Amino acid sequence: MRPSNRLPDQLRDVRITRNYTCHAEGSVLIEFGNTKVLCTASVEENVPPFLRGKGEGWVTAEYGMLPRSTHTRMAREAAKGKQSGRTQEIQRLIGRSLRAVVDLKALGERQITIDCDVLQADGGTRTASITGACVALYDALQGLVAAGKLAHSPLKDWVAAISVGVFEGEAVLDLDYPEDSACDTDMNVVMTGSGGFVEVQGTAEGAPFARAELDSLLALAGAGIAQLVELQKAAVAA
Amino acid sequence: MRPSNRLPDQLRDVRITRNYTCHAEGSVLIEFGNTKVLCTASVEENVPPFLRGKGEGWVTAEYGMLPRSTHTRMAREAAKGKQSGRTQEIQRLIGRSLRAVVDLKALGERQITIDCDVLQADGGTRTASITGACVALYDALQGLVAAGKLAHSPLKDWVAAISVGVFEGEAVLDLDYPEDSACDTDMNVVMTGSGGFVEVQGTAEGAPFARAELDSLLALAGAGIAQLVELQKAAVAA
Amino acid sequence: MRPSNRLPDQLRDVRITRNYTCHAEGSVLIEFGNTKVLCTASVEENVPPFLRGKGEGWVTAEYGMLPRSTHTRMAREAAKGKQSGRTQEIQRLIGRSLRAVVDLKALGERQITIDCDVLQADGGTRTASITGACVALYDALQGLVAAGKLAHSPLKDWVAAISVGVFEGEAVLDLDYPEDSACDTDMNVVMTGSGGFVEVQGTAEGAPFARAELDSLLALAGAGIAQLVELQKAAVAA
Amino acid sequence: MRPSNRLPDQLRDVRITRNYTCHAEGSVLIEFGNTKVLCTASVEENVPPFLRGKGEGWVTAEYGMLPRSTHTRMAREAAKGKQSGRTQEIQRLIGRSLRAVVDLKALGERQITIDCDVLQADGGTRTASITGACVALYDALQGLVAAGKLAHSPLKDWVAAISVGVFEGEAVLDLDYPEDSACDTDMNVVMTGSGGFVEVQGTAEGAPFARAELDSLLALAGAGIAQLVELQKAAVAA
Amino acid sequence: MRPSNRLPDQLRDVRITRNYTCHAEGSVLIEFGNTKVLCTASVEENVPPFLRGKGEGWVTAEYGMLPRSTHTRMAREAAKGKQSGRTQEIQRLIGRSLRAVVDLKALGERQITIDCDVLQADGGTRTASITGACVALYDALQGLVAAGKLAHSPLKDWVAAISVGVFEGEAVLDLDYPEDSACDTDMNVVMTGSGGFVEVQGTAEGAPFARAELDSLLALAGAGIAQLVELQKAAVAA
Amino acid sequence: MRPSNRLPDQLRDVRITRNYTCHAEGSVLIEFGNTKVLCTASVEENVPPFLRGKGEGWVTAEYGMLPRSTHTRMAREAAKGKQSGRTQEIQRLIGRSLRAVVDLKALGERQITIDCDVLQADGGTRTASITGACVALYDALQGLVAAGKLAHSPLKDWVAAISVGVFEGEAVLDLDYPEDSACDTDMNVVMTGSGGFVEVQGTAEGAPFARAELDSLLALAGAGIAQLVELQKAAVAA
Repeated sequence: MRPSNRLPDQLRDVRITRNYTCHAEGSVLIEFGNTKVLCTASVEENVPPFLRGKGEGWVTAEYGMLPRSTHTRMAREAAKGKQSGRTQEIQRLIGRSLRAVVDLKALGERQITIDCDVLQADGGTRTASITGACVALYDALQGLVAAGKLAHSPLKDWVAAISVGVFEGEAVLDLDYPEDSACDTDMNVVMTGSGGFVEVQGTAEGAPFARAELDSLLALAGAGIAQLVELQKAAVAA
Repeated sequence: MRPSNRLPDQLRDVRITRNYTCHAEGSVLIEFGNTKVLCTASVEENVPPFLRGKGEGWVTAEYGMLPRSTHTRMAREAAKGKQSGRTQEIQRLIGRSLRAVVDLKALGERQITIDCDVLQADGGTRTASITGACVALYDALQGLVAAGKLAHSPLKDWVAAISVGVFEGEAVLDLDYPEDSACDTDMNVVMTGSGGFVEVQGTAEGAPFARAELDSLLALAGAGIAQLVELQKAAVAA
Repeated sequence: MRPSNRLPDQLRDVRITRNYTCHAEGSVLIEFGNTKVLCTASVEENVPPFLRGKGEGWVTAEYGMLPRSTHTRMAREAAKGKQSGRTQEIQRLIGRSLRAVVDLKALGERQITIDCDVLQADGGTRTASITGACVALYDALQGLVAAGKLAHSPLKDWVAAISVGVFEGEAVLDLDYPEDSACDTDMNVVMTGSGGFVEVQGTAEGAPFARAELDSLLALAGAGIAQLVELQKAAVAA
Repeated sequence: MRPSNRLPDQLRDVRITRNYTCHAEGSVLIEFGNTKVLCTASVEENVPPFLRGKGEGWVTAEYGMLPRSTHTRMAREAAKGKQSGRTQEIQRLIGRSLRAVVDLKALGERQITIDCDVLQADGGTRTASITGACVALYDALQGLVAAGKLAHSPLKDWVAAISVGVFEGEAVLDLDYPEDSACDTDMNVVMTGSGGFVEVQGTAEGAPFARAELDSLLALAGAGIAQLVELQKAAVAA
Repeated sequence: MRPSNRLPDQLRDVRITRNYTCHAEGSVLIEFGNTKVLCTASVEENVPPFLRGKGEGWVTAEYGMLPRSTHTRMAREAAKGKQSGRTQEIQRLIGRSLRAVVDLKALGERQITIDCDVLQADGGTRTASITGACVALYDALQGLVAAGKLAHSPLKDWVAAISVGVFEGEAVLDLDYPEDSACDTDMNVVMTGSGGFVEVQGTAEGAPFARAELDSLLALAGAGIAQLVELQKAAVAA
Repeated sequence: MRPSNRLPDQLRDVRITRNYTCHAEGSVLIEFGNTKVLCTASVEENVPPFLRGKGEGWVTAEYGMLPRSTHTRMAREAAKGKQSGRTQEIQRLIGRSLRAVVDLKALGERQITIDCDVLQADGGTRTASITGACVALYDALQGLVAAGKLAHSPLKDWVAAISVGVFEGEAVLDLDYPEDSACDTDMNVVMTGSGGFVEVQGTAEGAPFARAELDSLLALAGAGIAQLVELQKAAVAA
């Protein structure tokens, strides 16, 4: 039995609130149960140095946790003067995931920065970030189309992410914090709306895991991501 | 006429939402119109080195703005590796303001850290932060009483803050961003519920200001803060 | 009775020594009793990025304390790798105060940096810095006139600063360190030669202060600053 | 055809040289073709603060590239003053991989730090690092046994790593730099000697990848790692 | 002919002013012509971690230049967030030089930190620093004796330093800035009052230098340092 | 008797291996007994800002020690976020030494960066670095000649370095770690192939040293460097 009484293949309640704040070109509050992440998309009409003059755009991401988004207060990274390895790992993952579904040439020489800031954490902040960020990115790209700066949105597909893991011997979907802290194997899976894999990151927290476990985790993840993509589509249709 | 059509002595709509997030001992979303700040209070059972063994507690604050809380995206301080002078100035102000209404000896050897994170900015983030932080602090201190760790709350009074300024020749209360950018004189005033001054910070943005202007600004501020303290009291009574 | 036996409205001995060092375009040692600050003005023929091509100049300030300017040695900020919040707050205040009396358009596209380095501290280093910096700035601007780079000095007025506070129940002028450490309310006031306010920063160190206290402190400060401006004028007339 | 003329399932020449330097408790130069990484294991008789008094040990890793290990010179991280996100990601991966095969309780309150420094890079530095680090760790643990500090080595199994990817439409093993730069899907796999998965990290560099590709990549990786573990065993038997 | 019209073996006017500031246990302004350095000695009743419990003391030094001590303004190291290599090299040299004449065991478990801050620079700041620092250290140690904390001063000898160099083909003593910028070979020599060498640092700025040049430079330096030691003795006798 | 049984004027076995790694324009492993340093030379077709447009080139150096090149592990400078004063001092010395033998005008507007990374340390890492760096620089410059970018190599002479010191009362050449830790006086000497001095840096570790000691140390160093230059010549002739 899961601590939350969910079925093994059951997502937490997922809510996607668009236009959560007013300044960003895309602004989405995504909630996976008690995990709440604010994802904003900011359009800038220039690109980083390595892309200048190449006629291509860039999508990048930054990630942060508010100091008291967690059970006990974490030191503020701005005050410590550096981002942790974990933070950098997550923001690199979010950026790669989003770039996988954007036609950067069609975007033109502009950059979209996605900021994913965790307001409240209960496990799965990176997968919520990717899933919400894609909606914020969708809105920012639609804004460029509406403003006549792009003929068509360069978003090629949806992308969403979910965690899966082996908790007390059973493969379960969308780990919350109590499960995440106790699970043996933890996997984050990023997939497109059409079912392709963008990222698969599995880690044995305790004992190494077998191929059969990997297969059942991937199956759970695929089904979960299909539901998340439906929620993304519903959110932008609203 | 003010850009927002408010009367010179009219506050923006102020909303105070307690328990906005679930982990902190106090968690308040405060809104001054479009300015939205999340204030959390975290209790730690130890004090900074300079107070160890003295039988007193400490209250301190940290302040941050989400990168896209503003009209155009600001660089993330954690990524730049340092907090700006403005950030440090504001968080020092918040901390001093709160300590003015706490009996630190009665708090005992524990520290309360208030994090004020701006989700959306439209002027007055520091005054909203102080006003919201006081409610978060109230809740955290009540929690210590409820847990039997303190006999009485060491909060001696309420504290709230408001900006006032001279906009197009007229003294106005609670500047929003368009006013703040254009005003001649800008003053932040921090006062207690019983009407004492905690901080007065006035700056001539353009021409120096006269004593008469100072007097009318202080009068406006006093009336505004009295309203804010009523809202604080109503919030905790709810 | 004040620890220094001064009358409540009595400044410490103030000395202003011009050309204290030989390389800077303006170099002033200012002494407020035992507080000694070296203020140098450096002219650079370019402006910071945000002003390039706008035909305006800039005046900015930096502040530092020698490690053993104080009673016990403070860690060197260059060795710690960052400036404290207090340092940044002070240098921002000095810069704003000076810009209030300079016609930046008339200065043209050049920057003047004022360095205020405390050689010996006994309270009031920020007010001594502003008062001395204005004389160093005067000399640097006169140098630009003498060199034919400017037709007239863009200095519109004098600016000086003083601290006032409530010490043992009485409002007193120009706090030294023993008073500063013990006072209830501490206020720094920056005014022009013609009596306009540039900055008013009052802080309740202990109990909140009342409007009447504020009024008597402002009156003391105004009289003190008038004396300081006379000393500035006398210094440059010498 | 692969640029190196290798068969799809063919490793580069792998050489493992023990005792490459003289001070470390374990010191291994591992070569995967032209990729050369020096892996040293350092034993310290204390643990990081979060483990003190718990009776357990810790294994951690740090990773670096010499500035001219690469085709064009990279800036030295020590001179830049920070480690890149990539560096931190890799060193966290190495540490987790090694901890998966060590009985940390049996290690006792001591820490082993593995430094993986890339002398020459030609793709696959992280997988070579893990594979070499395990041998350095083996030697350091044997040293503790030989010194009578441990009754048995707490190394529970071998761990090795390899990259696999889809290059010009074909799944290939052990990517070198020309393949790595051009491949569509890139996966790093970490497995134990007994065939359990420790880490699986797959990334779509261009188009998302399908489940069938994932399966063939995992099969290739499993066979490659089995060979690497034989080479590890042979190295320590020599 | 030297730019200053000095003879080849002629020092600049050297002035040593004790008690230049009031808080430090030793405070000396040393002037070598236009080079002016404030040297303060601060006594702390503890030692750095590597010496704790060993019954020995430590003497260390820090060095800084005020931003406008130089012909054109240098960036402030505290604002840049790090000390330059030159700064670190100089402060290490000052510390080593002073430790050479202190009996650290006799000092007991306390640390003396010497801060050398350059108020005005005209060449030779590091040699002036060492020479002045020794007097500040003398005073601080005498203060410990006077306070009954030490029976005898642990200062074993005087130490002073001077630069010598080959300027326009001739060996000259005590280089000022115009000579220093133009000289071929530059040597800094640190010697004790009894004529022993503590440091010899010679650098060929242009062509390598020959043994004969080295010999004549060392002879000049020896004579110069003997004069400096007389000045040190005279200063403390005053 | 020296711990290594060497004669007082005997170098350790010195080996110079060219083309040790494959990417750099010059890559040399130099060994002074157990001290092993990898020196790479990287050519970049641009110069630092202070030289732009002046038609001259630049040669600079960086130095690092692998964390476990030493008897006990040193913290990684990249992880600490800054280079120590010792590191900066050494890399500045290496750079100056190499520039002394390069005609920077003849090099043209390009920079050569020498990275000296210590793989294994047993004393004398800075002198080994300089000696090896010169060979790496030779190869890089020959490469520019071979590529037709330069008509002649701008290397004017060889440069090599050695340490000398007084160990148990006797002057000895090429100190290894046990000698270096125990010696009274330590001197690093850098000389050209034609016998000119480039740098002389002598430090009294314990008692000050006399002129006679200095003379015998310089004589030892001169003879040692002559041998090193022969080894450099032999290495490039091979």
